Amino acid sequence: MANLDPDREKVALFLEDLQVGQRFVSGTHRIDEGQIRAFAEQFDPQPFHLDPEAAKTTLFEGVVASGWHTAAITMRLLVGGGLPIAGGIVGAGGEIAWPSPVRPGAVLHVESEILELRPSRSRPNRGVATVRSETRDQFGEVVQVLVAKLVVPRKMKP
Amino acid sequence: MANLDPDREKVALFLEDLQVGQRFVSGTHRIDEGQIRAFAEQFDPQPFHLDPEAAKTTLFEGVVASGWHTAAITMRLLVGGGLPIAGGIVGAGGEIAWPSPVRPGAVLHVESEILELRPSRSRPNRGVATVRSETRDQFGEVVQVLVAKLVVPRKMKP
Repeated sequence: MANLDPDREKVALFLEDLQVGQRFVSGTHRIDEGQIRAFAEQFDPQPFHLDPEAAKTTLFEGVVASGWHTAAITMRLLVGGGLPIAGGIVGAGGEIAWPSPVRPGAVLHVESEILELRPSRSRPNRGVATVRSETRDQFGEVVQVLVAKLVVPRKMKP
Repeated sequence: MANLDPDREKVALFLEDLQVGQRFVSGTHRIDEGQIRAFAEQFDPQPFHLDPEAAKTTLFEGVVASGWHTAAITMRLLVGGGLPIAGGIVGAGGEIAWPSPVRPGAVLHVESEILELRPSRSRPNRGVATVRSETRDQFGEVVQVLVAKLVVPRKMKP
């Protein structure tokens, strides 16, 4: 398997290594207008993501990032060490909310907390971790809340 | 405001135009290995998205798209006419699940249904529509279910 991030591999956590209440903090990512426009042109071409002038007349009153862009950056921060789970971050789904907009210049990071851990009944080599990940900007404002169910491997018995 | 899609503007729907049970079908998007890798390099650099050989040894047994990539493509299909809401598609949040993986070559489309309509109490010019959007591949397999709460404008009274 490609070793994409040696540091992450070193601290890769299995289901048995996790505890309810355990917290993780990611690195940061600065978003700018160019990134917002590039993502929007490909996936969410609406005026409030693309055009500063047109965006002024929308309910956002200026350019904001697509919520899916915020979600994608959040994933990048989690994969880049923000949530060091063995075997990678594999989500089955979850709940997502965007309580406040992400504007150009925002510096984002992700704070995650383990909410629940459940071994699989049918598959002894894995389980499910429910993780709440808050994406915050440089002012501490929460711009995304993701409560995700992740597939986490268990240590193989000797 | 920039007119990004003349056809969509023509049929832009306000809250009063929507009905519970109303259905919409999007156009299609074919995803290939290059798209999957490009998205993953930027946002989700894990072996099961990036490297066909390494992906064989993972639980996916081959390359699959990032769930966030599927979400982004779904948004593109909704914005591109799959959900013709006046003022664009503005989501406050929702629930998302990826019941089966998206593999290279999949041809995706989105089928949406209005589940609930609620005028805002505090803001007479808008409301919230709850919409279930199923993203399906060319075999009809559901690869993503998104139940989203969307901000929808109401017609201004004369």
